[in-house]
Amino acid sequence: MGMSRAAISALKTFASSGNTPLSSTFSRHLHASAGSKKIVGVFYKANEYAAMNPNFVGCVEGALGIREWLESRGHQYIVTDDKEGPNCELEKHIPDLHVLISTPFHPAYVTAERIKKAKNLQLLLTAGIGSDHIDLNAAAAAGLTVAEITGSNTVSVAEDEMLRILVLVRNFLPGHHQAISGEWNVAAIAHRAYDLEGKTVGTVGAGRIGRLLLQRLKPFNCNLLYHDRLKMDPELEKQIGAKFEEDLDAMLPKCDIIVINMPLTDKTRGLFDKDRIAKCKKGVLIVNNARGAIMDTQAVADACNSGQIGGYGGDVWYPQPSPKDHPWRYMPNNAMTPHISGTTIDAQLRYAAGVKDMLERYFKGEDFPAQNYIVKEGKLASQYQ
Amino acid sequence: MGMSRAAISALKTFASSGNTPLSSTFSRHLHASAGSKKIVGVFYKANEYAAMNPNFVGCVEGALGIREWLESRGHQYIVTDDKEGPNCELEKHIPDLHVLISTPFHPAYVTAERIKKAKNLQLLLTAGIGSDHIDLNAAAAAGLTVAEITGSNTVSVAEDEMLRILVLVRNFLPGHHQAISGEWNVAAIAHRAYDLEGKTVGTVGAGRIGRLLLQRLKPFNCNLLYHDRLKMDPELEKQIGAKFEEDLDAMLPKCDIIVINMPLTDKTRGLFDKDRIAKCKKGVLIVNNARGAIMDTQAVADACNSGQIGGYGGDVWYPQPSPKDHPWRYMPNNAMTPHISGTTIDAQLRYAAGVKDMLERYFKGEDFPAQNYIVKEGKLASQYQ
Repeated sequence: MGMSRAAISALKTFASSGNTPLSSTFSRHLHASAGSKKIVGVFYKANEYAAMNPNFVGCVEGALGIREWLESRGHQYIVTDDKEGPNCELEKHIPDLHVLISTPFHPAYVTAERIKKAKNLQLLLTAGIGSDHIDLNAAAAAGLTVAEITGSNTVSVAEDEMLRILVLVRNFLPGHHQAISGEWNVAAIAHRAYDLEGKTVGTVGAGRIGRLLLQRLKPFNCNLLYHDRLKMDPELEKQIGAKFEEDLDAMLPKCDIIVINMPLTDKTRGLFDKDRIAKCKKGVLIVNNARGAIMDTQAVADACNSGQIGGYGGDVWYPQPSPKDHPWRYMPNNAMTPHISGTTIDAQLRYAAGVKDMLERYFKGEDFPAQNYIVKEGKLASQYQ
Repeated sequence: MGMSRAAISALKTFASSGNTPLSSTFSRHLHASAGSKKIVGVFYKANEYAAMNPNFVGCVEGALGIREWLESRGHQYIVTDDKEGPNCELEKHIPDLHVLISTPFHPAYVTAERIKKAKNLQLLLTAGIGSDHIDLNAAAAAGLTVAEITGSNTVSVAEDEMLRILVLVRNFLPGHHQAISGEWNVAAIAHRAYDLEGKTVGTVGAGRIGRLLLQRLKPFNCNLLYHDRLKMDPELEKQIGAKFEEDLDAMLPKCDIIVINMPLTDKTRGLFDKDRIAKCKKGVLIVNNARGAIMDTQAVADACNSGQIGGYGGDVWYPQPSPKDHPWRYMPNNAMTPHISGTTIDAQLRYAAGVKDMLERYFKGEDFPAQNYIVKEGKLASQYQ
């Protein structure tokens, strides 16, 4: 059985006082659990695609491949894609679920209101990376633990960023459109197709994904820049071959290509508004596989229409699923997709294994790997502060 | 004035006897030229796109940026995109042109018949790489020189191969199609989207482009294989991190992804026919930016339809421009484009500069850089033998 909210709140007061042994006890207590738990997973539905790949575990039907394991241990496991509005399936289970597993691809928006209703809730697991769909401050205030499967799809996202950079710089999509629609007009593509070689690429954020991207960019002989809160270790910086730019607004006008690699936080929400986009080089290419809300939606669409942005490749939107009339679907020179970059089959297998491992630890009352915590004992991980 | 055909033929007899000093003299004589030359360039037409980029030199309107230079020296310079049939513009100039500049993107097919009619022809320059649109044996027999701008767009093509590998392995195009058509169905994409990491990539041919691709693949942590006529120097092989496969048919079943990186020759024409495609792993992804005719057209379309090929990304067709009813336009899981990979703006500037340099050498009677010769003194370069 889980601790009551009152007990958690009381312990939190001690925990945040910095008393390490007690804090450790608190953590174990939070995870300790006897008896059956109600676990709810919110994933995208696969329908006819579910049976097409035995490793397709990330969908409702695949249910991360942990149903048999959970049920054989006496836990209840509800899986749904129905996550919006007062009458959705998720809402029905909010009052008595203990664990909620969600993903960034089909995000279950865990608002303060839902947290308030979820009297038994202890643990919020993000199958993937990025927990901005959860009101982290509300979760912290309620004494909940939020954790991700850190690293499970960093390579997947970095590869996809490389893809989108190339798609934009080479002007690939109009070419493909010609091919499949019976046309042939090389000039219509070539007049704005470039090599990546020799161009300046700047990543805004050089955490796990940003570094993997920089490593993959190295043999392309670009001029690599990065902006981050922290300068890398000189040895790593040299190995990666990227130059630190302390001032974001000083880096932007140098870049032919800008890649967004930061989490969505109160500080980064709307960071790329009209004014900041205007600071970029005319015709800049922007890749954003981080979070849609880091950009001002209309400012991006306007800049694509004016040519200030020469191409925008993004895998992320707000909200998700994106409505049919979202302007990013129809702006010129976009390389948009639904949120797919972190849910390759390989990524699914990794984050499914990670969820199982963390549930196992939760049932045993063990700590998670330190880097997986987003909210622990009332505190947000540094990248969300 | 150029040498007469008879004189060239006579000299060729000596040249091929291995008498080096004479061979060198022959070469100088071939290039030696007093007075005005008629130079014809066949490029794709840009129409409204011509004025959109001052560096767009590779089109008819841009004419490689050498018109003023040529005309100021008293040469005649005709440029056209009209290259097919008995009444085309090119055909009118065949009888009296001295130099023909052509490209692989909008190939002027230089048949034995055209060579026979071209009594003044001395030099065939390919602005780019790949001279298979020229009947090289007929050119050799007629004592013509054929030369390319070797290296001018190798990086451009290798980058585009990387792009197409990622587009296919990540199942990007159906995702983009959803985004721009108002849909949202992550499962329809994710059930067959993979990371590139950990997959086996084999290049069929590891010349200039193949090696650039392998270098760019290295940080993606794949299993890299290459088949070529020659094993690389062990030091280079170690640095590139790819394993030599002497037997093509032994390599194919190991590969998740196959990239074609060989010229089109009598030996490679139709190399990937139904039987060879059947030797590949079920669902193999194939990238071909080399030449369309290396594949059996219908066999590729059939294998895409059956699922034997899981995705085919190609920039090259036969013939070019591709007809509206070419089956590769409509087969499932294709990432086709018109032939654009080697004609980025950066590539155009390089091959335009290369053409100018070689014309300058031709006017002065100087040799070209050795690696640029495709046919010299009646002999084909080794890759075309």
